[in-house]
Amino acid sequence: MSTLRNARGMGMRKLAWVVPAMLLAAGQVIADDRVTLVTAARIHTMDVAKPVASAMAYDKDGRILAVGDVDALAKRYPQARRQDLGKATLVPGLIDAHAHVGGLGLAMITADLVGTRDKVEILQRLRTHAKTLKPGEWLIGGGWDQNDWPEKVFPSAADLDAAFPDRPVWLSRVDGHAGWANSAAMRAVRRSLAGAWQPDGGRIDRDAAGEPTGLFIDNAMLLLEQARPPMSETTIEHALRTAMRAAASQGLTGVHDAGVSLAELRRFQRLADRGQLPLRITAMADGDGEALESLCRNGLYRHASGRLQMRAVKLYADGALGSRGAAMLEDYSDDHGNRGLMVMSPAQLAAATAKAKRCGVQAATHAIGDRGNRETLDVYAKALGADAAGDHRWRIEHAQVLAPQDLPRLAGLHVIASMQPTHATSDMPWAQDRVGPERIVGAYAWRQLRDSGARLALGSDFPVERVDPRLGLASAVTRADADGLPVGGWYPNEKLTAYEALRGFTLDAAHAGFAEAEVGSLQAGKRADFLVLAEDPLAVPGEALRALRVLATYVDGEPVYEATGKASAAAP
Amino acid sequence: MSTLRNARGMGMRKLAWVVPAMLLAAGQVIADDRVTLVTAARIHTMDVAKPVASAMAYDKDGRILAVGDVDALAKRYPQARRQDLGKATLVPGLIDAHAHVGGLGLAMITADLVGTRDKVEILQRLRTHAKTLKPGEWLIGGGWDQNDWPEKVFPSAADLDAAFPDRPVWLSRVDGHAGWANSAAMRAVRRSLAGAWQPDGGRIDRDAAGEPTGLFIDNAMLLLEQARPPMSETTIEHALRTAMRAAASQGLTGVHDAGVSLAELRRFQRLADRGQLPLRITAMADGDGEALESLCRNGLYRHASGRLQMRAVKLYADGALGSRGAAMLEDYSDDHGNRGLMVMSPAQLAAATAKAKRCGVQAATHAIGDRGNRETLDVYAKALGADAAGDHRWRIEHAQVLAPQDLPRLAGLHVIASMQPTHATSDMPWAQDRVGPERIVGAYAWRQLRDSGARLALGSDFPVERVDPRLGLASAVTRADADGLPVGGWYPNEKLTAYEALRGFTLDAAHAGFAEAEVGSLQAGKRADFLVLAEDPLAVPGEALRALRVLATYVDGEPVYEATGKASAAAP
Repeated sequence: MSTLRNARGMGMRKLAWVVPAMLLAAGQVIADDRVTLVTAARIHTMDVAKPVASAMAYDKDGRILAVGDVDALAKRYPQARRQDLGKATLVPGLIDAHAHVGGLGLAMITADLVGTRDKVEILQRLRTHAKTLKPGEWLIGGGWDQNDWPEKVFPSAADLDAAFPDRPVWLSRVDGHAGWANSAAMRAVRRSLAGAWQPDGGRIDRDAAGEPTGLFIDNAMLLLEQARPPMSETTIEHALRTAMRAAASQGLTGVHDAGVSLAELRRFQRLADRGQLPLRITAMADGDGEALESLCRNGLYRHASGRLQMRAVKLYADGALGSRGAAMLEDYSDDHGNRGLMVMSPAQLAAATAKAKRCGVQAATHAIGDRGNRETLDVYAKALGADAAGDHRWRIEHAQVLAPQDLPRLAGLHVIASMQPTHATSDMPWAQDRVGPERIVGAYAWRQLRDSGARLALGSDFPVERVDPRLGLASAVTRADADGLPVGGWYPNEKLTAYEALRGFTLDAAHAGFAEAEVGSLQAGKRADFLVLAEDPLAVPGEALRALRVLATYVDGEPVYEATGKASAAAP
Repeated sequence: MSTLRNARGMGMRKLAWVVPAMLLAAGQVIADDRVTLVTAARIHTMDVAKPVASAMAYDKDGRILAVGDVDALAKRYPQARRQDLGKATLVPGLIDAHAHVGGLGLAMITADLVGTRDKVEILQRLRTHAKTLKPGEWLIGGGWDQNDWPEKVFPSAADLDAAFPDRPVWLSRVDGHAGWANSAAMRAVRRSLAGAWQPDGGRIDRDAAGEPTGLFIDNAMLLLEQARPPMSETTIEHALRTAMRAAASQGLTGVHDAGVSLAELRRFQRLADRGQLPLRITAMADGDGEALESLCRNGLYRHASGRLQMRAVKLYADGALGSRGAAMLEDYSDDHGNRGLMVMSPAQLAAATAKAKRCGVQAATHAIGDRGNRETLDVYAKALGADAAGDHRWRIEHAQVLAPQDLPRLAGLHVIASMQPTHATSDMPWAQDRVGPERIVGAYAWRQLRDSGARLALGSDFPVERVDPRLGLASAVTRADADGLPVGGWYPNEKLTAYEALRGFTLDAAHAGFAEAEVGSLQAGKRADFLVLAEDPLAVPGEALRALRVLATYVDGEPVYEATGKASAAAP
């Protein structure tokens, strides 16, 4: 102990990682590998009754035994394996309360068009990616955003046909609410896409002659998705594992996967059975389909490993703001006559929430526009009835634009606002054009929602936004982009403190996943899911949150990620 | 207009202040002195429906006509007198929700012992101050804090007697809850201070022989106060005006004066009659005395000028933490056997709040310790009964240490937490010694109180703390001292955002004074009380809030303070 202290005092911080092993070798300390005692400059526990600590002990199963003062814990566990993290800060593992693991995996193994500034750059990336494909194999990609292009209008098949006359190309928009196909891809759809018909909850963009342009909104995207040949299981598992590895390396220990089919749940189950889930996956059944039916028939699902559960259903009120698919109470400010569209009708939402209520399933409904949100609140109020005051934890996903009078309704119904801070900083260049200066005041309104008493679960919506939760922390605190613009932040009245942002990505995200007894804070009895950070996130300026250095990510007391170039006594 | 814009675009910011006058001289703009149109880089209105604006128009009575976009307002008021503030930021005038104007005035004209580090320094300052006094005149001073001294124990008369054998000396502690007299001052008290008796709600410190040491706690201070010859009206008015001038120069446009006697109210009235109140004074009747009786008999008081009102009563549950006079549920952690004391008994508090309720008077009770706060909440709950849900706006002043289970009771009873952020940063070196690691979690707990749904009205408690509200903003946001220590802030989970801190010093302070229809935000119909700041308080880092430059302070559309060395088109 005193040796360790002296080492630290002498600034030999890097050594601290290896000192316990050295001491062991010298026989000075008899390690007890049943208990690990980790010490750090500061531990932000997120436990209100004991917010700051300097040491934490956990057992070999990854269960936290005690959190407190280093001297007291050293006395209590004299034989523990010691791990001194020097000047590092520990925080609970971050939980992304709304994301798409499969989508990220797919994005990581398909053509990445995020950040492309014009179609020339897109064609370059597509040609590079096509070199990895077999002849005739579909070229899949995503992440484009016409708002980033000089012309700012939707693209068409013709933009792709010259470069790819035969290979089907299918490219989803950055928000997943629109898709862009070339002619080869449209030919693969068996039904004629021409004419005047439209699918429910979607729209095929057509020219004056009634021919499809290659642009498909919301449910119309299914026509192309269903025409695509399926990917192999091996490829999909590879994509999932690639995505989870990326998530762990950025500090995530859990993800709420917002829309998982029964087949996808089985895939996660297989990975969990093989011990190949580095994160805790909280799956939401995708829509009013067979996964929800399975929850109703077989009960809420939880894998024995504690790494996978499904007890919620993801429903869809409307589309997205970027593609003007979000359902608005009045016309879009920049597109008169257009009020967006509902993806599920109010009647469908009512039926699905009634079913969820009956089966004890948590409802989590995508709602972006002020009409989408109002319809969802109306449906929730009706489905929950007097049980609104209970512990249902129903959620609105995004809760992006709300009419001022609807803001307090979330707290009134005990509905959780599941929001994505990076959406605000990504959308701020154009969001006010879409909704105008009055409605914008109820948009991305974290502070107003929190002040009204609603609980905020924070996430990223990756791959729509980047997986990195540090960007979400920074956006929540600064309301500014990576360049610090606009100075002082966009509608700075909506800023959160760093503590609140952290709470939204830890304790309140855990609560939104019915997991706060296990994770979300560092307290005796909970799981040892934690991050080792080089900087203290509550001590650095808000803009520095995006540059926090993740030294290691632990789940169940085991490292699932460790920064390279660092000796570690914790490697199993 | 375009000329102004070009001037700004060319970086000729300083010129902007004089340009309107130049244009006037050139006859290019016909000024309409009935309307002033002020434009700035940013106006933080604190109006949730329109948080940011670039222009504000107000009439010659100081009533805001419109807040909005500079081009729209310029069209609407083409004849208005223009005042372009260039890169400055406008915010609503700051309101200190808990302070003592008379106390500050007294402190400013008496010996200032704030920040003295030992008794040598105190004696130096006292000798300097004594030179301004007549022979035999009482030497009055205040601001000492034994916690800042090497020995950290209460002082005694003997410390003063050698330097001042004949001149009475009476020095109040920094928190006003203890006083230090020399022997000459004690001789002026007619009753013998020796023996075993103690006054109600106070304590005379005595040595083993039963002789008074010179140290008087809480109500025992009255023995000395009453022995002092009264100050002249001229001196007191001079003190008040000195204090208000200081307050305006730091950005205050309003002060809630926490404890005003009927005589003091009449003094403020006389100043208001003469147009000599530069600030809005919201007086609280001092205790269950004649001022409360007057409110009950004659109704709530409001001066026709709108600058003075009295509709609240200040009550006193307990003492202060520094002098261990705060009433605690358990022993002080650093003084076993001591649980502090109640200043008014629960029965007295109950009688006073019942009277306040009967007369429609707002109760505002000083409560520091967890017992003081609990007794206050119990008494409030009983007095308010079913009306707790109504618009009573009863307040707890300080709400400094609360038992965790009492924190949500403020929101439940709709009681306002009137807190002083600088108390936390002043007390943090020793507060945890007083109450220990468990109770400290419920101390200075702004964030927990706000999250529980309570409204926060912020203030300084000047002259206990410095009058400067920028220090309060900085403390609320950083929970750190001027040196940035502790790094990351003391219990950083309790931090507020800059917007919330500003709201506590504007809109929510106005609400706590039943004045939100008149002040607290910049909206059409309200008064033009505002600050011109060189920096944007929502754009600078938290620690920079203490260095915001106040360029001017306006009340009713007229400057009550302007920084020197700056040309101004606004001077009347």
